[in-house]
Amino acid sequence: MISVLLIGKGNVASHLHDVFLKADTIEVTQISSRNLENIPDANVTIIAVSDDAISEVSAKVNNNLVVHTSGACSIDELKNKNRKGVFYMLQTFSKGKEVDFKKVPFCLEATNLEDQKLLNKLAKSIGENIYEINSKQRKSLHVSAVFVNNFTNHMYKIGSDICKENKVPFDILQPLIKETASKIATLSPKEAQTGPAIRNDEKTIKSHLGLLSTEQQEIYKILTKSIQNGN
Amino acid sequence: MISVLLIGKGNVASHLHDVFLKADTIEVTQISSRNLENIPDANVTIIAVSDDAISEVSAKVNNNLVVHTSGACSIDELKNKNRKGVFYMLQTFSKGKEVDFKKVPFCLEATNLEDQKLLNKLAKSIGENIYEINSKQRKSLHVSAVFVNNFTNHMYKIGSDICKENKVPFDILQPLIKETASKIATLSPKEAQTGPAIRNDEKTIKSHLGLLSTEQQEIYKILTKSIQNGN
Repeated sequence: MISVLLIGKGNVASHLHDVFLKADTIEVTQISSRNLENIPDANVTIIAVSDDAISEVSAKVNNNLVVHTSGACSIDELKNKNRKGVFYMLQTFSKGKEVDFKKVPFCLEATNLEDQKLLNKLAKSIGENIYEINSKQRKSLHVSAVFVNNFTNHMYKIGSDICKENKVPFDILQPLIKETASKIATLSPKEAQTGPAIRNDEKTIKSHLGLLSTEQQEIYKILTKSIQNGN
Repeated sequence: MISVLLIGKGNVASHLHDVFLKADTIEVTQISSRNLENIPDANVTIIAVSDDAISEVSAKVNNNLVVHTSGACSIDELKNKNRKGVFYMLQTFSKGKEVDFKKVPFCLEATNLEDQKLLNKLAKSIGENIYEINSKQRKSLHVSAVFVNNFTNHMYKIGSDICKENKVPFDILQPLIKETASKIATLSPKEAQTGPAIRNDEKTIKSHLGLLSTEQQEIYKILTKSIQNGN
């Protein structure tokens, strides 16, 4: 049995609480980060709060092993006096939408082998994809995630705006969006690229630019140039 | 029975030939665009050649109803003397990868009701999602497709480059990529947005920029600004 204390009441903390409750080998307690006067002890204390609050909250926790869940923060952001670690799940968590933890990649970091084993065991109680990732690697994963998630979502946003502007249903594009995402499970993104930029089809590029707003044009041009540079 | 003549030997023509062969109500013939001396007659003649060749090839075809398959070209690009139309399938076709035509959106255009009905019937013989889309609408769909397909794929490419540079497996990001694509089936892209740009998390943005090449920084900055503008 592993005892887990969750500090925080946000999306990540709530989803973790729900899934730990279902695991036979885990005993879980959840408290708010606003009420840290009586902190129960636990084998692993998971601080799942906003990046800015990690330092302040962790300074108040005297438990043995204290980990945060942030992709952007180094392990050194933790200010507790005892052992430290990171329990980062690389997935988007939305309120009200159930998470399939079997598919979530767990990126774990610890400062000694015993803690690493404990975090691996904890992650295996709810998931399957476990990676040992240090703070520098995690930071690079986090910036990659901004490109493949936030910026990709912004491409969808612009596509949807263009459709709205021209009165065609955005839903026509949904199969293409799904196919684009599933293609790179078998092809590298470089091999999967198609379209006017990679073909250097100047006529089509010029005609597309005529349909766009100034900001959209700027984005279209810089991404076309970047595709053509092969970078 | 609808007789179909396919002109062209590329990806789109080959995939169409395969699926029409399986349809009971279709009789299909395929010829190369390089050999147009004896062109067989047909109810619908589909020119599936590169955008640049549509005008030249169509000028040589005297069949009754001649359509092209291009998302970027207007119906006026066809130079045949008889009736014209467009049979555009909004999906990426890769060599060797089977296409599920039941999921392909067919965007159809004709100049009269009878031809529109014939094209609808033809599309329904192999697919389910049929849209009547004029040349102006199709052009806007095509530029939207560049954003949600080509540019999104380039976001995957940059994410993969960052992973390679920092020696972490890109595969860790695959579940996030799939979730990002499937999320917008139920949420609008605007509602689905998360991350440092929309949160205006300057500390994380600054730290991300330090990890990127000059070109990647330029893209990161312009997309962050665009997300923050809400445009």
